[in-house]
Amino acid sequence: MLRKTGKSTYILENTPSITGYYSTVGSKEGKGPLGSCFDTVEDDSHFGMETWEQAESEMLRRTVEGAIKSSGLDKSAVSCIFSGDLINQCLCTNYGLRDIKIPFLGIYGACSTMAEGLLLASVFCESSNENFAAATCSHFSTAERQFRLPLSYGGQRTPSAQWTCTASGAAVISPKGAPPYISSVTIGEITDLGIKDASNMGAAMAPAAAMTIKSYLESTNSSPDQFDVIVTGDLGLVGSKLLYELLEKDGIDITRNHKDCGSMIFDIEKQDVHAGGSGCGCSASVLCAYFLPRVKSGEIKDMLFIATGALMSPAASQQGETIPAIAHLIRISNNV
Amino acid sequence: MLRKTGKSTYILENTPSITGYYSTVGSKEGKGPLGSCFDTVEDDSHFGMETWEQAESEMLRRTVEGAIKSSGLDKSAVSCIFSGDLINQCLCTNYGLRDIKIPFLGIYGACSTMAEGLLLASVFCESSNENFAAATCSHFSTAERQFRLPLSYGGQRTPSAQWTCTASGAAVISPKGAPPYISSVTIGEITDLGIKDASNMGAAMAPAAAMTIKSYLESTNSSPDQFDVIVTGDLGLVGSKLLYELLEKDGIDITRNHKDCGSMIFDIEKQDVHAGGSGCGCSASVLCAYFLPRVKSGEIKDMLFIATGALMSPAASQQGETIPAIAHLIRISNNV
Repeated sequence: MLRKTGKSTYILENTPSITGYYSTVGSKEGKGPLGSCFDTVEDDSHFGMETWEQAESEMLRRTVEGAIKSSGLDKSAVSCIFSGDLINQCLCTNYGLRDIKIPFLGIYGACSTMAEGLLLASVFCESSNENFAAATCSHFSTAERQFRLPLSYGGQRTPSAQWTCTASGAAVISPKGAPPYISSVTIGEITDLGIKDASNMGAAMAPAAAMTIKSYLESTNSSPDQFDVIVTGDLGLVGSKLLYELLEKDGIDITRNHKDCGSMIFDIEKQDVHAGGSGCGCSASVLCAYFLPRVKSGEIKDMLFIATGALMSPAASQQGETIPAIAHLIRISNNV
Repeated sequence: MLRKTGKSTYILENTPSITGYYSTVGSKEGKGPLGSCFDTVEDDSHFGMETWEQAESEMLRRTVEGAIKSSGLDKSAVSCIFSGDLINQCLCTNYGLRDIKIPFLGIYGACSTMAEGLLLASVFCESSNENFAAATCSHFSTAERQFRLPLSYGGQRTPSAQWTCTASGAAVISPKGAPPYISSVTIGEITDLGIKDASNMGAAMAPAAAMTIKSYLESTNSSPDQFDVIVTGDLGLVGSKLLYELLEKDGIDITRNHKDCGSMIFDIEKQDVHAGGSGCGCSASVLCAYFLPRVKSGEIKDMLFIATGALMSPAASQQGETIPAIAHLIRISNNV
């Protein structure tokens, strides 16, 4: 049974386990500070395929297969996979998972997708005692040309721009077994403080992260210090700074134990990524490669994972619109 | 508690109720055979806005407000809304629901969106005893230019082409109260039998509908004759005929009690829509305007609603790809 507390937080009393997880990244991500953590670093940015979209689809397919294998389950034991990506019509998900023969529910949450998928998978697991999976992916070469400029244009990037990661992460959620456990979740709300700059996603997403974190802490009557780490998806340097400022106004200080996947995945200065990494695959791969193993081992006892999505649309931007954003939260614990 | 039966069917033992629903359509749909059923027929295809995308967003916003009002609930009592649409990045959903201040989970299932949203909302309601909503929309003028040709090009339409409806439907799901009840659901699987023609969505979607219907009947050990009506989303004339042929191979005959929202919403000959209506809003509006009131009154005692989505992507089509499709199922009953 799901127990709601506050506006949109749910306590999962059966505390589903994350029983399998896998990450795949491209070569630039593999050369970053977390390079040795990822399950696969693929040096061929085409993943053996002809087009970028096929490459991203193939990366997702391999990652999902890897996560299911690591869970020890047969594919037929996975009741449904929740997945989506950044490319129009969630192309890479629909084609990447076309032949996998697992029931499928498509989601769209931009870079919040991994948290949304884990939220749905853990709620379905909690309610049915079956196994579910969550996955997402992003690819520098598909995303940049869709959302910003043709790659061959060689456009100059602004200091606030983030680098869309070529990365994918997938996880399998099963009825309570061993840590990591998912013990509660918060569904986010769309928020829009008026950012129009498609090269400043961090600023567009920070208010959504602040709203969701505040909502979780208030709903559960908890304080930031209770958690070993509070992990945001991909706010990058600009967005993280804004998040601190927004939370400070409400007397919430997360500066001591906050980490941001977008700031972790690259060596920001040496790898010339400006404000950090981004893309659905950024937080998904960092969660699966870096954080989940540490929660499993007990090095991290209790963490919040808040993936943020900029619900940006080139068509809306061309019509003068600002960028709405959303953030969903998952609490992941070693002990319940 | 959700009880799984077969590969991907779930019995909702608490049988959530559909306590509110609302439909909005454009003038062409209003002139069709179901014209008098819709809650609102809007003659201004711009819905008072400047762009088509803003028009579709506004249509969705009004429809969601209408559904919540009809449920008798305050907005603050709706725990989450599941919604998505056809436009890239689910633009119309993200902007249409930006100011509504209800927790939100974005979904992408193309024209299967209403069934996916109802499935998720009813599972969350079943598991938490809270109220949830599902909604979707489509607009002829946003969809045609994104998926096919610029409107002003005046391209000739093939006989198998369907007409994207300007329509929206929304429903509120609450813990068991009064009919209509949602008593079980089936999550679909991506299927692709090799259709490449973006003007023949019915053919691409028919195999997904067949697979999901067959899976439901087998999982629940039921036969088509048990239902007053088996309603598909928007297969249109071409897709419906293919659905009969595919099911016939498995000895399943639904011809006596099948209806298709895409074939019902227009007077196909007089309104020059070729193979019928389509778009997420087609089945969503027909469900909310025509079928739900009849289940509520008892005129329909038991029905299956199967919305089908063509997961078509212009980028994938340009790369020579075929069109995958998916169908999700909801059983809606007057009595449980």
